[in-house]
Amino acid sequence: MEGAELTRRGLLVGIGAAGGAGAMYAAMGALGLAPDEQDKTFTPPRPGDFSLQGRGAAKVVILGAGVTGLTAAYELGKAGYDCTLLEARAKAGGRNLTLRGGDRLTELNGPAQEVKLGEGLYFNAGPARIAQWMVTLDYCRELGVPIETFVNRNAQAYIHTNGQSVRQRTARADMYGYVAELLAKATDSGALDRKLTAEDRDRLLTFLRRFGDLGPELDYEGSPRRGFFDYPGLDEGSPFPPPGSLAQVLAAGTGRAITNDFGHDQASPMFQVVGGTDTIVTRLVEAIGADRITTGAKVTGITDLPDGVEVTWDGGRIKADYCIATLPPHLLAKIPHNLGADVTAALRLPTPMSTGKIGLEYDRRWWELEDRIYGGVSETDLDIARIWYPSYGYHGERGVLVGYYNHGPDAELYGALTPDDRRRRALTQGKKIHGEKYRTGVLSSISIAWERQEHIQGGWASWPAFDSSFTLLQRPSGRVYFAGDWLTRLTAWMAGAMESARGVVTELHKRVLQSS
Amino acid sequence: MEGAELTRRGLLVGIGAAGGAGAMYAAMGALGLAPDEQDKTFTPPRPGDFSLQGRGAAKVVILGAGVTGLTAAYELGKAGYDCTLLEARAKAGGRNLTLRGGDRLTELNGPAQEVKLGEGLYFNAGPARIAQWMVTLDYCRELGVPIETFVNRNAQAYIHTNGQSVRQRTARADMYGYVAELLAKATDSGALDRKLTAEDRDRLLTFLRRFGDLGPELDYEGSPRRGFFDYPGLDEGSPFPPPGSLAQVLAAGTGRAITNDFGHDQASPMFQVVGGTDTIVTRLVEAIGADRITTGAKVTGITDLPDGVEVTWDGGRIKADYCIATLPPHLLAKIPHNLGADVTAALRLPTPMSTGKIGLEYDRRWWELEDRIYGGVSETDLDIARIWYPSYGYHGERGVLVGYYNHGPDAELYGALTPDDRRRRALTQGKKIHGEKYRTGVLSSISIAWERQEHIQGGWASWPAFDSSFTLLQRPSGRVYFAGDWLTRLTAWMAGAMESARGVVTELHKRVLQSS
Repeated sequence: MEGAELTRRGLLVGIGAAGGAGAMYAAMGALGLAPDEQDKTFTPPRPGDFSLQGRGAAKVVILGAGVTGLTAAYELGKAGYDCTLLEARAKAGGRNLTLRGGDRLTELNGPAQEVKLGEGLYFNAGPARIAQWMVTLDYCRELGVPIETFVNRNAQAYIHTNGQSVRQRTARADMYGYVAELLAKATDSGALDRKLTAEDRDRLLTFLRRFGDLGPELDYEGSPRRGFFDYPGLDEGSPFPPPGSLAQVLAAGTGRAITNDFGHDQASPMFQVVGGTDTIVTRLVEAIGADRITTGAKVTGITDLPDGVEVTWDGGRIKADYCIATLPPHLLAKIPHNLGADVTAALRLPTPMSTGKIGLEYDRRWWELEDRIYGGVSETDLDIARIWYPSYGYHGERGVLVGYYNHGPDAELYGALTPDDRRRRALTQGKKIHGEKYRTGVLSSISIAWERQEHIQGGWASWPAFDSSFTLLQRPSGRVYFAGDWLTRLTAWMAGAMESARGVVTELHKRVLQSS
Repeated sequence: MEGAELTRRGLLVGIGAAGGAGAMYAAMGALGLAPDEQDKTFTPPRPGDFSLQGRGAAKVVILGAGVTGLTAAYELGKAGYDCTLLEARAKAGGRNLTLRGGDRLTELNGPAQEVKLGEGLYFNAGPARIAQWMVTLDYCRELGVPIETFVNRNAQAYIHTNGQSVRQRTARADMYGYVAELLAKATDSGALDRKLTAEDRDRLLTFLRRFGDLGPELDYEGSPRRGFFDYPGLDEGSPFPPPGSLAQVLAAGTGRAITNDFGHDQASPMFQVVGGTDTIVTRLVEAIGADRITTGAKVTGITDLPDGVEVTWDGGRIKADYCIATLPPHLLAKIPHNLGADVTAALRLPTPMSTGKIGLEYDRRWWELEDRIYGGVSETDLDIARIWYPSYGYHGERGVLVGYYNHGPDAELYGALTPDDRRRRALTQGKKIHGEKYRTGVLSSISIAWERQEHIQGGWASWPAFDSSFTLLQRPSGRVYFAGDWLTRLTAWMAGAMESARGVVTELHKRVLQSS
C-alpha cells in the first residue's frame, strides 16, 4: 500500500530530523520496520548446519593468504570446511605487514632492506588504523587481539602549506573564527531574514559565538583556542599573537587539513592493534592452522570444472569443490583461466594505486619532548603528504615516525629512489616543519613502495565506477568466487577485506547447504 | 626604545599571521627576542646549589599531601630539603583519588561505601584526563607513570538534548552543513563582496564545500558524515535519513556539546594514567619517602615566627624554617594563624564548587558491543550532565562507566541522596539515552560527592576575579607560602597543583640560597 508506505516514511524522516538516529531507530522498531542491519548480520557457518542435511563441508582452495583469504578460511573453518590457502609470498598477511628489527624487506627491481628497528618498536607498512564501526574491531575482539587508541586528530600537530607551518588548533580556531564572524554579521544585519525566523537567528548567533569564540561585537579577534607560547599556569600564559586577516587565513590553505577527519572512516577516535597490525594475521593463522597455508605458491591457472575447480601453481596442482580468489584484481587478471572474457575484462578495470611509507627511528622522542605532540598526523602539501607520530610508546626512549605516507605520483617518485635516497628526501622535507632536529638522531629507517611489492604491486585498487563489472565479480563465476577489499565500498581498509570474505562465505555456505 | 619595540611587535604580528606559530617563534629567535617560555623553564633545586654557599637545605613543613604538597616535597627533596607533610585524611593524594575493589569511601553526613569493582577495574573519583601541554605529562615521564590516550571526543557518542538523542557525528555534520550552506549562499549572492575579494570568495567557497559537505548548488542535503544504520561494506550501506530543517537542527540545541572540546584544555587527544590517576601519587610518595607524611593530622594552628614557622595539629606540633600551605582555601581560612586579616579575607574569596561522579560497573561492555562507542563522552542536558565511557579495557568482560559528572546544583542534588538513590537516579537518566539495557547488568556502583569529602569539601575553588587577593596569596606571608591549583589559572587541574608547587619551590629555594 503505497500511501501507508509514504506516510510511514514521512513520519520517519520527521522523527529522524527532530530526534536524531536514536529516536529514528526506535521509531523504526515501533513501526515494525526492520532496520536493514538486521538483514545483514553475519552468521558464521557452524558444524551443526550440516547435521540436518546429511552432508559434509566442502573442500575450498583459497588464492591468497591476505586478510581476505585468512578471514574466509577462518569462517569456513568454523563449520569444518577443508580449506587450503595458496600464497605466493613468503608469508601470510599480504598488505597487513608489520616490520620489526631482524626482518628483511625485498622489492621488485630494488635492493633488499634489513629492518633495524630497536626492541619493542615496529612499523606498520600497511594498514594501521581502524574506525569504531568497522568489522575489524569485531575480529580483534573475537580473536583476542588487543587494541588501543590511534590518534588521528591532534590539535597540537602541524599543517604545513605554502611553506608555512601552523598548529592545527591555530588553523582551526582561525578558520572557524572567521566563518563564524562572517555568518554572524550577515545574520545580524538581516541579510538572512528570509531564511531565518527571529528564534532561528538567536539560536544561530548563540552557536556562532561559541563556534568561533567571537567577541561581543561578533568579531573574531583571536582566541585561547589558537594556542600559547606558554600555556596558562601561575599567570594567564603567553598566547600566540593575534590571527592574520581573513584574507591571510584563507590564503594559508589549511582547509583540507582541518576537515581531514570529518568523514565516517576517519572520525576520532580510531584504534590500532597493540604491538602492530599483524597480530590479526598471527591470530587468524593460528586459528586456521598454519599447515593449511602453502607459501611461495604462485598460481598459474584456474579451471572451473563441472564438479569442482582445479588450481595449478608453480609447484603443484589442487582440486577442490570451490575456489575463492582473493588476489589483487590486476594480478588475477593475468592468470590463465576458463571463466570467460567478461571476467578478465572486469578484473582489468580496477586501477592499482601506488603508495609508500617510510618509518624513521629516532634516538629520542623529540616530538613529545619539544613539540608536545603525542600521536596524530601533521598534514602537508609536500611530497611526503604527511607525518605520523606514534600513538604508542609514549615517553619511551626511542620512537618511530612515519616520515611519509603518500600515494600516486608522490609515492612513485619516492618508490623510484633507493632506500637511502628516500630517507634523505623525507628528512629534507620533514625539516621544513620541525627544523634541523628532524635530521638528527635517526637510528634507522625502513621504507616500502607497495607498487614494488612482489605479488601485490599496489596499495589498493580502485574501480572507475561501481558498475556491472563490479557486481559481476561480486557473484561467483561457476565455482570460483572473488573477494577482497577491492570488491567492497571499503577499498584499502581491512574491514573491506573482512566484509568481502564474510559475503563470499555466506554465499558459498548457502550454496553448499542447498546443493544436492 | 618604544619605537623599535613597536616595529618589532608589528613585524611579529605580521609573521604570525602569515606563517603561524612556527614562523613566529623562529622570527622571535631571529630578532633576539627570547620567547617567554625560556624565562619560565623550571629548574629543580639541586644539592649542588648549596655547595658554593656553605649552607644547607632548610626544614619545610607542608600542609596537605595532595598533588601540590607532594610535588613541592618531591622537588625540594631533590636538593635535600627536610620536608614533613601533614595530611588530615587517612592517606595521601587529596582529590587525586582512584577507587578499586576493597576500598572504602566515607563521607560527611552520609554512609560509607564499600567499593566492589571487579579485578582490574578502577574509578577515578577525581582528576582523570591530561592535556598534551600540561606539566602533568612531564611528571608522568619523570616518575615513570605510564600514560595512554583518553578519548575526550567521540563522533559515535551521543548528545542528548530536549529529550532526544543524536550521535555527535550527526549533530556536527548537520550544524556544520547548514552553517556552510548559509554562508556559502550569502557569499555566492554577493552579500559579502565588501569584505571579500574575488580570490577570498573562491577560497572561502572551496572551504565551505568541504566543511559542510555541500552539494553542487551549495545546498546541505545530508552527508555520509552523519552516520549509517549499516556502514558501507559490500554495498554503499544504509545512511541515516536526511537531516531535519535548519530550524529543527538549531532547535535541537546541540551547539554547546559539539564545541565542548574546542578549548585549549579539552582539545584532543588527551591522556590518562594507565590503571588509574593515583599512580602519580604512589610514585611521588615513593620518591619522597612515605615516612615524611603524617596522615590523620588535622592542622589546628599556623604561627609565623621570626626564625621559623610553628604548626600545630591534633596530635602534635612541629617547627620548621618554612611552611607551604596547600589546603583548600576555604578550609585554610578557618585555621587560626597570625598571618593577618588580609590573608584570611583573601582565603575566603575562592568559592568551593560542589561536584560529583558515579562509577557504574556493568557485566558487559554494551556500549562497545551494541552502540559501537569506544571511550568518549555523551553530553546531555540532564542532571547527570554527561556519561563517560572508559578509555581502557576495550573488549574486556566488564567495564566502568561514569554515570554522572556534574557540578553545582546538580551535584548537590545527587550528593544529598543516599548512594543507592544516586545510582537509581543516574540509571533512570542514562536510560533516556541508552534504553533499558542501561539499567541491566549493573554489578556495582560507587559515587562521590566532593563537597562531602572530609578535609576537602569541594571539587575545586574558583576566584570571583584574579585580583590583588589572588596575587597576595601567590606571595609568601612571612615564612608561610600558599600553593594549590586554586592559586593558578589551571583551577581543578593537576597541572595547576604542579605549577603552583613549582612556583613556590622556586621562590622558596631562591630565598634560602639568598638568606644569610
